[in-house]
Amino acid sequence: MSKVIFDSGISLDGFFAGDNRSPQNPMGGVSGQIHSWMFNQKAFWEYLGFEGGREDGADGRYIRETIARTGAFIMGKRMFEEGEASWPNDLYKAAVYVLTNEVREPWIQEGTTTFYFINNGIESAMDKARQSAKGKDIRIQGGANTIQQFLNAGLVDEFFIHIAPIFLGSGIRLFDGMDKDKYDLQIEEVIPSDLTTHLKYKLTKK
Amino acid sequence: MSKVIFDSGISLDGFFAGDNRSPQNPMGGVSGQIHSWMFNQKAFWEYLGFEGGREDGADGRYIRETIARTGAFIMGKRMFEEGEASWPNDLYKAAVYVLTNEVREPWIQEGTTTFYFINNGIESAMDKARQSAKGKDIRIQGGANTIQQFLNAGLVDEFFIHIAPIFLGSGIRLFDGMDKDKYDLQIEEVIPSDLTTHLKYKLTKK
Repeated sequence: MSKVIFDSGISLDGFFAGDNRSPQNPMGGVSGQIHSWMFNQKAFWEYLGFEGGREDGADGRYIRETIARTGAFIMGKRMFEEGEASWPNDLYKAAVYVLTNEVREPWIQEGTTTFYFINNGIESAMDKARQSAKGKDIRIQGGANTIQQFLNAGLVDEFFIHIAPIFLGSGIRLFDGMDKDKYDLQIEEVIPSDLTTHLKYKLTKK
Repeated sequence: MSKVIFDSGISLDGFFAGDNRSPQNPMGGVSGQIHSWMFNQKAFWEYLGFEGGREDGADGRYIRETIARTGAFIMGKRMFEEGEASWPNDLYKAAVYVLTNEVREPWIQEGTTTFYFINNGIESAMDKARQSAKGKDIRIQGGANTIQQFLNAGLVDEFFIHIAPIFLGSGIRLFDGMDKDKYDLQIEEVIPSDLTTHLKYKLTKK
């Protein structure tokens, strides 16, 4: 049975992205700061099909686990537009459902990544992602606003955050406008690291 | 040599207090949610001089350590006004410097708590707290705005947060308007718990 999850890096002051996001300025230029822990990991570069990374400890295991359990992705159109301009080919290696008003044929990449453009809402994207995932998990990739929509619709089962030891001061917060009465949250796992703090939460809809 | 520290509970969405704080509604009514981990601890009740609490594990050790290292407190006037109406006698067992425009004689409580009212800014409060602390640490107690002033003035050496597994949705955020260029932050310790996540950070001024 597929779970709905997300896995996001944030700053200590809660920011998922910086100011002035655009395809020319993905994540508002803060990816290097928020995700530096990830760029240090062999597991991350291995996934991309490159040599790279220096470390392969608990952080790397975490990356491998999340990759292994994900069967399909959902993302918002702003994240997609940023990525279309900058992601390497076949980054997701699965079906990716993009929430957008744009009517567009699926973009089948070389490898196993296909982007599907969904015009009729998050529930429809969920149904399609569930079919693609074949029992693996459905990962809400972002941006923050898309994650908030799924959270506040009561659709998320688990999530993982990585709190980087940095302040950004401004930008787009991951947890903004949360419905405080939607879930009971349980701390599932805490993985300490010098680079970031990995936290896993399990959600039970009230 | 005294360090300047703070030790604050926050929600997962970063709130230190709820909306509509007032002496009639301390912390906007969210203390029970943010601090429930603490109310479970024998160490907390012991400090207050009462019997109470059910647990005495890593969370409790954390409370005892923070109490033992603190030699003086600084707080903002809004927090003081809320507390004046609701705190038990001799809660702080040390000198407490209250940042306020109000000119007022020290309030000497039964026990070892004395509140001093400081009218000439945070540096002056620091100097006085340093003298009182006699080599122990100076704890910036709150509220969030007071902590932000000390952080952004580059005066904080270490801080501890306790992230409760709850969303509040709105209120006063602990880390709002952070100066992103003031410090290098280092993760000093992570203490997992089912009740909250304890994180300690060490700050080096850039």
